[in-house]
Amino acid sequence: MSDPFFAPKGVAVIGASQDAHKLGHGVLRNLIQYRYKGGIYPVNPKAYEILDMTCFPSVSEVPDPVDLAIIVVPAKVVADALRECGERGIGHAVIVTGGFSETGQEGKELEDELLDIAGSHGMSIIGPNCIGTIDTHTPVNTTFVVGMPEPGEIGFISHSGAMVAAIIDWASGSGIGFSRIVSLGNQIDVNETDMMRTIAADPNTKVITGYIEGVADGMKFMEQAKMTAKEKPFLMLKGGKGKSGAKAVASHTGALAGSTEAFRTAFRHSGIQEAETIEEMFEWARAMAWQPLPKGKRVAVLTNAGGPAILAVDALEKYGLEIASLSDDTKAFLRKRLPKAASINNPVDVLAGSGPGTYTLALEALLSDDNIDAVVVIQAPQDWFLPVSLAEVVGEVAGSHDKTVITSIMGKASVEDALKILQKRRIPNVAFPERSASVLSAMIERRNWLANAEKRSKAPINVDKQEAEKLVEDRNWEKLLKLYGIEFPKQFISKTVDEAVEYFGQVDGSVAIKLISDDISHKSDIGGVVLNVSSEDEVRLAWEKIESAVSKQKATMDGVIVQEMIIDAPEVIAGFVRDDQFGPMVLFGSGGTDVELYKDVDMAIAPLSETAALDLIKRTLIYKKLKGWRQYPEGDIQSVIKVLVALGQIAADHPNIKELEINPLNVLARSKGSKALDVRGSLTVSNGM
Amino acid sequence: MSDPFFAPKGVAVIGASQDAHKLGHGVLRNLIQYRYKGGIYPVNPKAYEILDMTCFPSVSEVPDPVDLAIIVVPAKVVADALRECGERGIGHAVIVTGGFSETGQEGKELEDELLDIAGSHGMSIIGPNCIGTIDTHTPVNTTFVVGMPEPGEIGFISHSGAMVAAIIDWASGSGIGFSRIVSLGNQIDVNETDMMRTIAADPNTKVITGYIEGVADGMKFMEQAKMTAKEKPFLMLKGGKGKSGAKAVASHTGALAGSTEAFRTAFRHSGIQEAETIEEMFEWARAMAWQPLPKGKRVAVLTNAGGPAILAVDALEKYGLEIASLSDDTKAFLRKRLPKAASINNPVDVLAGSGPGTYTLALEALLSDDNIDAVVVIQAPQDWFLPVSLAEVVGEVAGSHDKTVITSIMGKASVEDALKILQKRRIPNVAFPERSASVLSAMIERRNWLANAEKRSKAPINVDKQEAEKLVEDRNWEKLLKLYGIEFPKQFISKTVDEAVEYFGQVDGSVAIKLISDDISHKSDIGGVVLNVSSEDEVRLAWEKIESAVSKQKATMDGVIVQEMIIDAPEVIAGFVRDDQFGPMVLFGSGGTDVELYKDVDMAIAPLSETAALDLIKRTLIYKKLKGWRQYPEGDIQSVIKVLVALGQIAADHPNIKELEINPLNVLARSKGSKALDVRGSLTVSNGM
Repeated sequence: MSDPFFAPKGVAVIGASQDAHKLGHGVLRNLIQYRYKGGIYPVNPKAYEILDMTCFPSVSEVPDPVDLAIIVVPAKVVADALRECGERGIGHAVIVTGGFSETGQEGKELEDELLDIAGSHGMSIIGPNCIGTIDTHTPVNTTFVVGMPEPGEIGFISHSGAMVAAIIDWASGSGIGFSRIVSLGNQIDVNETDMMRTIAADPNTKVITGYIEGVADGMKFMEQAKMTAKEKPFLMLKGGKGKSGAKAVASHTGALAGSTEAFRTAFRHSGIQEAETIEEMFEWARAMAWQPLPKGKRVAVLTNAGGPAILAVDALEKYGLEIASLSDDTKAFLRKRLPKAASINNPVDVLAGSGPGTYTLALEALLSDDNIDAVVVIQAPQDWFLPVSLAEVVGEVAGSHDKTVITSIMGKASVEDALKILQKRRIPNVAFPERSASVLSAMIERRNWLANAEKRSKAPINVDKQEAEKLVEDRNWEKLLKLYGIEFPKQFISKTVDEAVEYFGQVDGSVAIKLISDDISHKSDIGGVVLNVSSEDEVRLAWEKIESAVSKQKATMDGVIVQEMIIDAPEVIAGFVRDDQFGPMVLFGSGGTDVELYKDVDMAIAPLSETAALDLIKRTLIYKKLKGWRQYPEGDIQSVIKVLVALGQIAADHPNIKELEINPLNVLARSKGSKALDVRGSLTVSNGM
Repeated sequence: MSDPFFAPKGVAVIGASQDAHKLGHGVLRNLIQYRYKGGIYPVNPKAYEILDMTCFPSVSEVPDPVDLAIIVVPAKVVADALRECGERGIGHAVIVTGGFSETGQEGKELEDELLDIAGSHGMSIIGPNCIGTIDTHTPVNTTFVVGMPEPGEIGFISHSGAMVAAIIDWASGSGIGFSRIVSLGNQIDVNETDMMRTIAADPNTKVITGYIEGVADGMKFMEQAKMTAKEKPFLMLKGGKGKSGAKAVASHTGALAGSTEAFRTAFRHSGIQEAETIEEMFEWARAMAWQPLPKGKRVAVLTNAGGPAILAVDALEKYGLEIASLSDDTKAFLRKRLPKAASINNPVDVLAGSGPGTYTLALEALLSDDNIDAVVVIQAPQDWFLPVSLAEVVGEVAGSHDKTVITSIMGKASVEDALKILQKRRIPNVAFPERSASVLSAMIERRNWLANAEKRSKAPINVDKQEAEKLVEDRNWEKLLKLYGIEFPKQFISKTVDEAVEYFGQVDGSVAIKLISDDISHKSDIGGVVLNVSSEDEVRLAWEKIESAVSKQKATMDGVIVQEMIIDAPEVIAGFVRDDQFGPMVLFGSGGTDVELYKDVDMAIAPLSETAALDLIKRTLIYKKLKGWRQYPEGDIQSVIKVLVALGQIAADHPNIKELEINPLNVLARSKGSKALDVRGSLTVSNGM
């Protein structure tokens, strides 16, 4: 598939300059020096020749084929230049020039004009205020940035031009190669969602990475990202996580679902893996491009020194990986072939005196062991053999197995040649052994997401839509939730003490008896509420007590509510909130009044399948309690799943609900259900008329 | 102060070898090639000359002065060699040879012999099974490891020889210089605690770093470390954090106070700062060696590009630093001198077109601003000027202020010269801007520790020691705690209903009424417990109810307990546990039954001052609640401090208590105290006879 942004047939540089300090010079220089093989056409009415190339006075005079224009003229004449390109039949333009919407309203108007022109000529635009595109395989480099990354398999989409420049410079010393790079600038036309499709379709790209500061359209972004991530690993660094302006929010759910959490949820939903730092993202990317994903999380560490292996093991355990137990065969083999004092448990320490031959035998044994999914090979600096030899044998042995191998050949000065060999052999090396843990953990996370991505079908609940809509309008959240199958504690209105006793018989366990009286508002204050009533006699005593309290107040008693009491059941929070960018998100976690203290909550995009609901539950600490823990029996997790799925569907069915929150939801013992004790919600303002 | 391990007058190499593959050759080679200026005396009865140096048949023939021996002969003859050194009057020996206790019991016996010899000759020994010592300023390098680090101000103590080798190799390419390095091996004599004293005393060492896997004596370690850390920054990487063998523990406190947490607590107590990775440790060390500590946490970011600055700000906020608000003067100045489109808020973005001159003016303005404690200067790769120029001006401007400056001149290939200048100018540079946050945060942590280190005096509670000891023997924890001033809920034994009513009057709020009866064990099951009793009438009703329940059981009623009920007060856990290495540690955090779920706990070394107790409280999430939060009024934090100080003193006064735990401790509103609701404890086994 030919895309003129990355594989143009000919490129016109509108605003090519003779002045080496100008961007219009840099762009032309890069096209030439980084060996673009198609036609290169500098356009500048004031020059005859630039960098030994004939200059055209106008784009209309540029010969065929030409399908991409790089526009570097001043902002005020960009519209004219773009129009001429459109008239010339050039379908794609990269507008490098800055000074548009980033500077204010005037610039915004200029952008609108550009969009009009593009629309009327059916053009695609990257920019303005961007750095441009690079394809190392074509090759073509439409940027003015000095340096061209090595060809590789990583695609990079960036909202920051500076980040592109920094990455190019950094990568050239780090053995990280790129396929395609694009800086999107103000993205008036082509945005990050369009670009992920283009880059995903590139056969040279094995892993997609990105630095983004926001998304143009959250829903489209997620949809496209999910398709992309099913095909290729998709890693992202999100800039701008800081405290956003404090919004006034009524619910816990609203307070907990900030923009950072929304992005994280959207990323997870779409199979995008979010890195914490630039370095981490590219370390993950390189490993995913070069190595197979581990089939499980059992890791072996092979080393020639104790200390570095200990640090690796500490980090692996911290990231939730398992230190593999070696099979008896492997142990027997190692016992035979390794030095007597060597450790044949995991970590396998061949000791400082062992060379590449011993490493080879041990690595072969570990990679052949069914108990092991991945191996980290560590070499602390030594004097006995050249690190290049180790790089060669690890590359060779790893290449004949389908398991993940990561090396940590430590040091800097003495190991450069070895690192080059590892790069050629597609073995990712980390400078410090503890860094292997983050890489392996990301690979396993990807494997797990892929395994579950297909399972996420929806299970719709049938409700009377009209009835539901009426309940929403009335903000009758309790009835709405009941309509969707969510349970509340049993309660009965009793006019007489005998009725109360009868209803008590219909409830498992104890009840609360609560006064009904129009005369009294704070019922518990005057003794109108009796808790923990657990026998018929107590019901009668409670009735009497309330009766006497009412008579003291000289008020009337209209009966009591007999309400099922829930004791010692874990409290969770379950709700949803509508994110401005990504739509409704279901929130779940530890409930009660301390929910914002411990923040043991997580979110998932609504609507959600039962699988997704269970995944969400599993991401919280309270899951441990629900599984049965300490004095708590196993909870009815199935009923919690039902509640979350129902909330997800309510969110999808009723776009006019802004937030809905059950807190606490009491999770009873297995097969006993969950009971919503309190619910609150709010409608979107736009629907409030 | 001359220490023969780092500044010997003459060095004998016992076991010097002509064979370039042997350690005894490497040691001699390093002494020579890394320019040790004192006498170097190879000892080997089988050689006349090694590396052009006259060889001595025996150490007894080595001429004066000689005060250090490096022993590299085989394990079985090390004792003989050591004895000869002792007889020759050499007081210090580094035993490089391995094959001792690390290989089993036989090796252990050899070590005991070495210790005997050392004792009888008054010798100090490093090793065996170690790499040796380096002092870059003397200079002397007694190791066989290829490479000599650049002279610098960082001392490094290591339990792993491989780590030393790796660090030397890595540092040589990273602009990190060292003063002294030592690998301690099996440390039969000189251990990490001795060595920290030696290295702290070295005037060339400004920062002490260490990789340790354990400590020889926890109490001495803490004492010495605290003295050391008061003088110089002390950073540590702890190896071996993995799941320790699952110990059977009875209390929450025991379960939560694992070895990793104990080390962390001991480190914090001693002013040692624990790094997560090797890289982090040396990045902190370099910054502390080169830059003043920030006086506060208000950071300004100066950049030429948006994206990298956003990542820096995200990271700074994540690490709890503040993005400084610039003063009006600074803003006015920047508005005048920066390009029109530049951002004059924080981050200050001078834009891509600005050069070192603009950076200079902006940096000077920021460093002169009283609202700013530290500045991070970012440079994304650009084409306009050489990065060296920026390095020069940043170094110069930063040098004339007493504030912390960290740079992130991004890239690799194009910035090497700039990094060398920064190194010379003592400006720490991080490859990616987000890394500046961890560095600044560590510097602020040090500043805070120094500010508080002197405040930590103890406030003893006077108790009758004999009475207390008796209570411990009886395991009467409640009375013991009361003796130390810890409160429990009020309770009264009432024989009659009138007594019960009378006692009720002595309690604020509601009470629980609990049956006293020898006949009935599960009192609440038969209705023998009534909660939330809040009026005299209710006391009478409760009495009747219990009476009728007892009569149904045909049992006798010996009266009731009227017990103060505590409602809605935050539950905390407070206890102590005795760590094998570091002695008693006080634990505090969110209490109740879920304490092991949320793990919102932290520890401090006992006994502890009121300041240390408050610090401990502040390190937990529950502190937020105790300060007054949501529906919770401000809690009586002073009373919690009292409880923690008392627990610390109990731990110190009674070494035979292994664990003691109050859970929950209910924290009442301000000035109302805290009440221990449940307490459990255990004695040490050694004292159990």
